[in-house]
Amino acid sequence: MLVVMQQGATEAQVQKIIDRLIEDGFDVHRSTGTIHTVLGGVGGKDSFDTAVVEQMDGVKEVHRIVSPYKLVSRAFRPQGTVIRIKDVEIGGSQVVVMAGPCSVESQEQIERSADIVADAGAKVIRGGAFKPRSSPYSFQGMGEEGLQIMRAAADRRGLLVISEVMEKEQIPLLSQYSDILQIGARNMQNFNLLRALGKIRKPVLLKRGIAATVEELLLSAEYIMSGGNYDVMLCERGIRTFETYTRNTFDVSAIPVLQKLSHLPVIADPSHGTGRRDLVPPMARAAVAAGADGLLMEVHHDPDHAMSDGAQSMYPAQLNELMGQLRLIATAVGRSV
Amino acid sequence: MLVVMQQGATEAQVQKIIDRLIEDGFDVHRSTGTIHTVLGGVGGKDSFDTAVVEQMDGVKEVHRIVSPYKLVSRAFRPQGTVIRIKDVEIGGSQVVVMAGPCSVESQEQIERSADIVADAGAKVIRGGAFKPRSSPYSFQGMGEEGLQIMRAAADRRGLLVISEVMEKEQIPLLSQYSDILQIGARNMQNFNLLRALGKIRKPVLLKRGIAATVEELLLSAEYIMSGGNYDVMLCERGIRTFETYTRNTFDVSAIPVLQKLSHLPVIADPSHGTGRRDLVPPMARAAVAAGADGLLMEVHHDPDHAMSDGAQSMYPAQLNELMGQLRLIATAVGRSV
Amino acid sequence: MLVVMQQGATEAQVQKIIDRLIEDGFDVHRSTGTIHTVLGGVGGKDSFDTAVVEQMDGVKEVHRIVSPYKLVSRAFRPQGTVIRIKDVEIGGSQVVVMAGPCSVESQEQIERSADIVADAGAKVIRGGAFKPRSSPYSFQGMGEEGLQIMRAAADRRGLLVISEVMEKEQIPLLSQYSDILQIGARNMQNFNLLRALGKIRKPVLLKRGIAATVEELLLSAEYIMSGGNYDVMLCERGIRTFETYTRNTFDVSAIPVLQKLSHLPVIADPSHGTGRRDLVPPMARAAVAAGADGLLMEVHHDPDHAMSDGAQSMYPAQLNELMGQLRLIATAVGRSV
Amino acid sequence: MLVVMQQGATEAQVQKIIDRLIEDGFDVHRSTGTIHTVLGGVGGKDSFDTAVVEQMDGVKEVHRIVSPYKLVSRAFRPQGTVIRIKDVEIGGSQVVVMAGPCSVESQEQIERSADIVADAGAKVIRGGAFKPRSSPYSFQGMGEEGLQIMRAAADRRGLLVISEVMEKEQIPLLSQYSDILQIGARNMQNFNLLRALGKIRKPVLLKRGIAATVEELLLSAEYIMSGGNYDVMLCERGIRTFETYTRNTFDVSAIPVLQKLSHLPVIADPSHGTGRRDLVPPMARAAVAAGADGLLMEVHHDPDHAMSDGAQSMYPAQLNELMGQLRLIATAVGRSV
Repeated sequence: MLVVMQQGATEAQVQKIIDRLIEDGFDVHRSTGTIHTVLGGVGGKDSFDTAVVEQMDGVKEVHRIVSPYKLVSRAFRPQGTVIRIKDVEIGGSQVVVMAGPCSVESQEQIERSADIVADAGAKVIRGGAFKPRSSPYSFQGMGEEGLQIMRAAADRRGLLVISEVMEKEQIPLLSQYSDILQIGARNMQNFNLLRALGKIRKPVLLKRGIAATVEELLLSAEYIMSGGNYDVMLCERGIRTFETYTRNTFDVSAIPVLQKLSHLPVIADPSHGTGRRDLVPPMARAAVAAGADGLLMEVHHDPDHAMSDGAQSMYPAQLNELMGQLRLIATAVGRSV
Repeated sequence: MLVVMQQGATEAQVQKIIDRLIEDGFDVHRSTGTIHTVLGGVGGKDSFDTAVVEQMDGVKEVHRIVSPYKLVSRAFRPQGTVIRIKDVEIGGSQVVVMAGPCSVESQEQIERSADIVADAGAKVIRGGAFKPRSSPYSFQGMGEEGLQIMRAAADRRGLLVISEVMEKEQIPLLSQYSDILQIGARNMQNFNLLRALGKIRKPVLLKRGIAATVEELLLSAEYIMSGGNYDVMLCERGIRTFETYTRNTFDVSAIPVLQKLSHLPVIADPSHGTGRRDLVPPMARAAVAAGADGLLMEVHHDPDHAMSDGAQSMYPAQLNELMGQLRLIATAVGRSV
Repeated sequence: MLVVMQQGATEAQVQKIIDRLIEDGFDVHRSTGTIHTVLGGVGGKDSFDTAVVEQMDGVKEVHRIVSPYKLVSRAFRPQGTVIRIKDVEIGGSQVVVMAGPCSVESQEQIERSADIVADAGAKVIRGGAFKPRSSPYSFQGMGEEGLQIMRAAADRRGLLVISEVMEKEQIPLLSQYSDILQIGARNMQNFNLLRALGKIRKPVLLKRGIAATVEELLLSAEYIMSGGNYDVMLCERGIRTFETYTRNTFDVSAIPVLQKLSHLPVIADPSHGTGRRDLVPPMARAAVAAGADGLLMEVHHDPDHAMSDGAQSMYPAQLNELMGQLRLIATAVGRSV
Repeated sequence: MLVVMQQGATEAQVQKIIDRLIEDGFDVHRSTGTIHTVLGGVGGKDSFDTAVVEQMDGVKEVHRIVSPYKLVSRAFRPQGTVIRIKDVEIGGSQVVVMAGPCSVESQEQIERSADIVADAGAKVIRGGAFKPRSSPYSFQGMGEEGLQIMRAAADRRGLLVISEVMEKEQIPLLSQYSDILQIGARNMQNFNLLRALGKIRKPVLLKRGIAATVEELLLSAEYIMSGGNYDVMLCERGIRTFETYTRNTFDVSAIPVLQKLSHLPVIADPSHGTGRRDLVPPMARAAVAAGADGLLMEVHHDPDHAMSDGAQSMYPAQLNELMGQLRLIATAVGRSV
């Protein structure tokens, strides 16, 4: 930590800061400049709240210099993490496509979905079983039955399953049927849930909150990893900005930024990232061109009658056309789809 | 719902929209203009997802005209809601001040806090018992013991208690010790929690998420009210913007906006709203001047050593000085403190 | 325009709105619903400020249904605009790359730049001659001399020139030396400048302001086109959001959105869009994958010593490697580079 | 400047940074920590672009520690600046109210406005003479004639005049008729205009851009002051956020923040800050409660027929009622209106 004192800070103010840092276990190195005195603090608690020092008299600004995350940082595993699930590698040379409906609605729907997804060449089927919605009167999901039929359909077509866990109580159930546990944007900072996910040995896909910085996303991943679960994927799915034409602003640049800062695989979700079916193909292409390790997308055999997220679900033909384009783009970045 | 067709939309496209709306129970009224055909849909399901129609061919834009919330709207109770707890009225002519430390840290601390708060003339003491923090190594709160000592200290000084509930499982425990259940910004759209809160009969203070619009805050309050719990307070506590000098941008204008749209009392939290102790008094004054029904603020007998949120906790003397200013400002808007 | 009255709006309130609309030349059609009365207004002034009606008593909300722009809209020229300058077509099947230094610094620098740019296969050289900077003591640009040497270097290598015009007084000078006039993000709503640009017959590249919506960008382009200059390119260059790791958030989704709404060519500027050299190649690839008609990028023979924007200028080798990748990606979207 | 090297940065990387800093005139002090090497650079050019170093190999982060502004900083004039114009002091103990129509529309209108403003007890009349609007067909202002009639009306009622200058060419004309030159949000970073304003001796009111940080506003004020014109007022008028209910989010907290960082008077414009007439009084009260040195507001004798900004212009009766409230609130912060 570097504490920059204000021009004209008194000796007493400087001493009070030094005392405060020593109190919390820091070694303090003082550097008296012509304009500003700078205090370097080393070795204190990681959880020390620098804002406290920032509000003390005579302090101009405080900078952490040690990253607040360690396990997720690229330095921890420079070659990058590859998550292996059955015969699928996420974070390897292949860009992994995960697709399917927003919600599991019926056996027939999910059987058709599995065919659409597998025929297109995707490796993972997605589908939500629990859908607590903004309106208390909306469809709330099929629950365990939905998971069962999705698992069966996936197995029939040799697909992996990804599905969202909303609360820590659901972890055992989801773990039984799903190969990857998805954590939604609203739960990115649900620390009780993150702690529970750290204790299991199932791969987790962690979505970025709509108002979360890249650093906050990494801190949440660190929370999971610090519990011992190292199979974490990061997922960009759009942030909230002033632009209203799209539901969110899909932050494509977060993909290379996350890959620079972290060794974890980065997945892109252009369906939630844009909220509009017509924008999913161009943004899926952009994500792969920017280096994404995988895509998570919504597709439905009849989007106009989907029980949820129909507006952002692709038609099957769109997915097929897109897959062809992605194969070409992947080669430009030295990968395959 | 009003569906505006694109210029040049075909008759087949118009008909497909009409059919789709009828399918979901709408009566459709068609108005063929010189440039745009406009379809008015009445009587369908409230939960109908207008985005689905928006993505259909030939559609230019779709507007809901019926508000997605009813129970929270000002029209539902034009005179405004007053929540009575013991001898305190929230939403009445008095501006209610709630203050206390971020976390319950020890019996001594909370006893001193109760004295600071009561002596300043505030009516409610705040303090968190469960603090799942961004770092897994940080102080996680005193739990039930913390609630017990806060209840005792509050009773000794005739104060009400407000404390945060993080998960629906905690509701019974919190209800036992706390007069008001606080829902944090990160839980504003935790629909399982909201549903559970709808079934109890304890007043709830619902904080706005840092990326939530005013409408989304109202929808979350509607979720609680639709379960039968009508004692809901709305709380502005800062939104995330591009400005980084303050931790959040405290959206003072949300106070009169919420009061215009809803009958529910509006509380302001300038501590989280700014993240800086020196900004809490001016923003508290601004909130009361703008018409807030109450304030929720952090104060600590020794903020430099607070276990959490020290940087935004006021010194006791600051609270006292502020209360004097608030009394004058309240008179300007026809109220008292 | 559709005016939705509040539930319970009085007959007098409705009549007052009708009168106000008629006063401004609208034909008004009234539709009395079970809950809301809706007034449709047709034929009034385009410039009518709907916010005035929105603030009148009894009004719930107002929606424009006629787009505030016409000449820029896709409907005006469904097949898309192709701007031809010498042998270069912008908006055609080829993705046009524009590259060069932020500022023209010296003859030697610009000669080397022209070689770097031309050798890489780009068609247009960029470089600023006027650089009014945030610090009054910074390098302010070489002015006309800079334009002269850039023109000469471009001609030697068969390149087009793009350079920024800061004020309407500079238009004649810039028009003499530059093939395309660039309008910076800060001038996107400088209406006096836009009006002057409408009167000339030089292609204009209009950059999106960092806080401008897609609609506002289109309105500014409409301003130019309404003066008679139809050769306008739209340029996405990053918007300001809460994320601070990148200087701006490069809104890749704006590319397909602009192409859907407008017939004008869309250029992407990943250098300003990210502010970091290491992010320029992935974002350039993403932009082409998303369908951009061209790229505007900064490259410098010695970025560490560039007089401005060094941190976001690519090394020449980066540009070369990128061009190879772009050629592959372009084929995926049916284009060439 | 503090340069924090990455963990594991090589000696060659460190040396390259040191050389680069020395090249630009910095004295470099090296501090080799257990984890990070930190380089302190002192004495180089203020205009040095730290982003260049940030992009060099082995660098983790760079922090400026000397503020990029000096003349505007509170340290430069701790007691605060008071701008005296005739018998009005801005920045003194009185909160100065500036009010009037958005545009000067006619002699009759401005005469009535002067009476409304003076009778309410305000000291300054506002009104725009040049209105380059987003639509090329809208009313563009009365020009010099408008300034003449506003000056006459102001003199008749003993008011000061504030009016906006859009381009540097307009400075002489505006200076002739207006006591304060207003710089609009869109021109906050028009450096040619700022430089020209630095050379005159007329007070300037500088509005914050809708996407400008507090620091950027201060840098623009520094630009003016560095030219020798020290009579600068800063004006908060709303920033752009994701919230769309209000036209902008009026950042009340910017008022105390600016006053902490700078000695310049801070004016609040709740009319543009909210865009809605009904929100102007509560936000005007909030601004004064937060410590604003003045208010700039729109009022019109007939807002429903104002040629511009009618929706955010108060009725005369609203202004009168508001002034009474402001007098009470001012006492709470030790001031008068």
